[in-house]
Amino acid sequence: MTTNSSLISIQRSTDTKKKPPQDQLGFGIYYTDHMFVMDYSVGQGWHDPRIIPYQPLVLDPAAKVFHYGQTIFEGLKAYKTADDRIQLFRPRDNFQRMNRSNDRMSVPELDIDMAMAALEQLIAVDREWIPSLEGTSLYIRPFVIATQPTLGVAPSEHYQFIIIMSPVGAYYPEGINPVKIHVESDYVRAVPGGSGEAKTAGNYASALKSQQAAKEQGYTQVLWLDGKQHKYIEEVGSMNVFFKIGGTVYTPALTGSILHGITRDSVIRLLKHWGIPVEERMLAIDELYEAGRNGTLEEAFGTGTAAVISPIGEMNWNGEKLIIGEGKTGQLSKSVYDTLTGIQTGAVADPFGWTQQVEVIGK
Amino acid sequence: MTTNSSLISIQRSTDTKKKPPQDQLGFGIYYTDHMFVMDYSVGQGWHDPRIIPYQPLVLDPAAKVFHYGQTIFEGLKAYKTADDRIQLFRPRDNFQRMNRSNDRMSVPELDIDMAMAALEQLIAVDREWIPSLEGTSLYIRPFVIATQPTLGVAPSEHYQFIIIMSPVGAYYPEGINPVKIHVESDYVRAVPGGSGEAKTAGNYASALKSQQAAKEQGYTQVLWLDGKQHKYIEEVGSMNVFFKIGGTVYTPALTGSILHGITRDSVIRLLKHWGIPVEERMLAIDELYEAGRNGTLEEAFGTGTAAVISPIGEMNWNGEKLIIGEGKTGQLSKSVYDTLTGIQTGAVADPFGWTQQVEVIGK
Ligand SMILES: Cc1ncc(COP(=O)(O)O)c(C=O)c1O
Ligand SMILES: Cc1ncc(COP(=O)(O)O)c(C=O)c1O
Repeated sequence: MTTNSSLISIQRSTDTKKKPPQDQLGFGIYYTDHMFVMDYSVGQGWHDPRIIPYQPLVLDPAAKVFHYGQTIFEGLKAYKTADDRIQLFRPRDNFQRMNRSNDRMSVPELDIDMAMAALEQLIAVDREWIPSLEGTSLYIRPFVIATQPTLGVAPSEHYQFIIIMSPVGAYYPEGINPVKIHVESDYVRAVPGGSGEAKTAGNYASALKSQQAAKEQGYTQVLWLDGKQHKYIEEVGSMNVFFKIGGTVYTPALTGSILHGITRDSVIRLLKHWGIPVEERMLAIDELYEAGRNGTLEEAFGTGTAAVISPIGEMNWNGEKLIIGEGKTGQLSKSVYDTLTGIQTGAVADPFGWTQQVEVIGK
Repeated sequence: MTTNSSLISIQRSTDTKKKPPQDQLGFGIYYTDHMFVMDYSVGQGWHDPRIIPYQPLVLDPAAKVFHYGQTIFEGLKAYKTADDRIQLFRPRDNFQRMNRSNDRMSVPELDIDMAMAALEQLIAVDREWIPSLEGTSLYIRPFVIATQPTLGVAPSEHYQFIIIMSPVGAYYPEGINPVKIHVESDYVRAVPGGSGEAKTAGNYASALKSQQAAKEQGYTQVLWLDGKQHKYIEEVGSMNVFFKIGGTVYTPALTGSILHGITRDSVIRLLKHWGIPVEERMLAIDELYEAGRNGTLEEAFGTGTAAVISPIGEMNWNGEKLIIGEGKTGQLSKSVYDTLTGIQTGAVADPFGWTQQVEVIGK
């Protein structure tokens, strides 16, 4: 742990909550007993780092976050290993991405060592909340909100950086299973020059309408095309996306409107490590459909922290259905899933240095 | 007032705040003694409309507004007339636009009669806060936030609709004055299929970076070009924009990524009423510069609730400066400003039925 951690004050909760059963966790429904909070004001910088009992935020109704959406978030997980250690997966990459998002949204930079110290201490305090049932984990949500109560459209002079944590269930309680995806032809998630590369609230709000329409038609998620031509594949819901075509794995290049997924990066490196050809490039939706029709499209899957790997069994683009891999989970998808989740939970060796132990002093 | 108003409970503030001097109000800095709040939950719909003392919101840190930005806002003004009446300017249009924004962002619809009743009662309760000094007004900020404390990316099942009010100063304390505008060539505000037509937080957050860069170079605002080709003029900051070229007034057509400004609509109707030719059409930035070079560009101005009319005296597009109307406020800009503000404050007759009186019972 870094030296910064000594600056963090800790106020322990006196009435700890009852923990929900580990087979009924769901996603982002229950929260641990504590949270981390740190304030920012112009002139003073980030200050008063503290771990306090999980509690409501008390904010002026004019706080800028409610009106102009100046907010950033991250998502990562802590895992319990079979021998009872606690592991994080590439946590510094999350805080680095957070700082890139902060920069795009005119939010002040965070000290990454400080953020890491905060995270490790918070996990140590709430370590009993990390579930151990297969497939479960502790989902961690760091976020920044603009709190200055003024209505002028300008960057806030006050912020809070907060970390909350939620024990989450297995994404696939009955094992990894392919999903159906609706290709969105009208709505747009992001465009170069916009905020699509930042993990900021507005991107998610504007995606809801398309997502709901897809759900009503029986699809789990939406595949987004580029905002200029509605032609190139970008992402799937809150996941990056991969396609195995004729033995090569393709994923859309990071052209300025796609989130730089940490799982995406891990998959690319894992595939290269295995000697499987991977290409990051622009990939047109009609090219994909052509590969589907001529039988060279072998597998498709989404990647993200929540599900890790989400195989795609069916797509629908303007009414044309494409069944991928007979609607079953492909072999590569399964291997990547098993290896990544294995590394995350400590069941598989980590040759990449992706995992980081959380030391719990006095455990 | 509609019958609905009888449903609104009123809890009066016991310690009223000191009112700031009317010549030092600024914009969105001070708030009145009361606010309106109404809750929504799936199944129950909108319920518990209430006027309460202005107070902080108490929200779970997992409330969706902090993470996925599901929030809508509006902005309108109440004016004090010389004979001490209270006037609103096209308030139903604001709530109608709010409902269009709500629809885009998967937020439940509001009952417009209910919203109007809430607004009128709130104004009546805080009527002493409406400033009367020339150019001042009471700025009204209705907004909706998503409050459900779950981290799944899906529309919230709980919301709050809130109205806060702020006495605001004259936008031009020294009289109406032209601003300098920076034409943004890299960043993008909105694209068709995105959320640019909705008055939602994310649009404003992602605009901050470009705005800050322009400010540092001495420009007041940014002129946004379309997100696909970076060619067509869309808006200026939080204003729609008009250009007088060769006797005709042009404003960008509402092509799907531009906010449907109520001031914009009022200006178009006023100009038509005056017999001045107005055209809503796509307007390329190079076409505008060409008009500037050949001397046919006579005037340029932005339109919005905050400033009403904001004359543009200078533009900068990739380093090429364009001085408009010798950098002075044009005659048409001035006439439109005087007439609109005159109608708003009751100094000029309102042939359009735009103004609405707020009746204060027992005044
Ligand atoms: C829009 C979007 N794309 C992709 C991802 C995947 O990123 P990561 O693998 O870092 O979780 C996320 C977040 O999880 C996301 O929100
Ligand atoms: C992006 C944007 N464009 C234009 C306007 C002008 O709209 P209105 O005239 O209704 O105030 C606003 C709001 O004031 C705005 O936020």
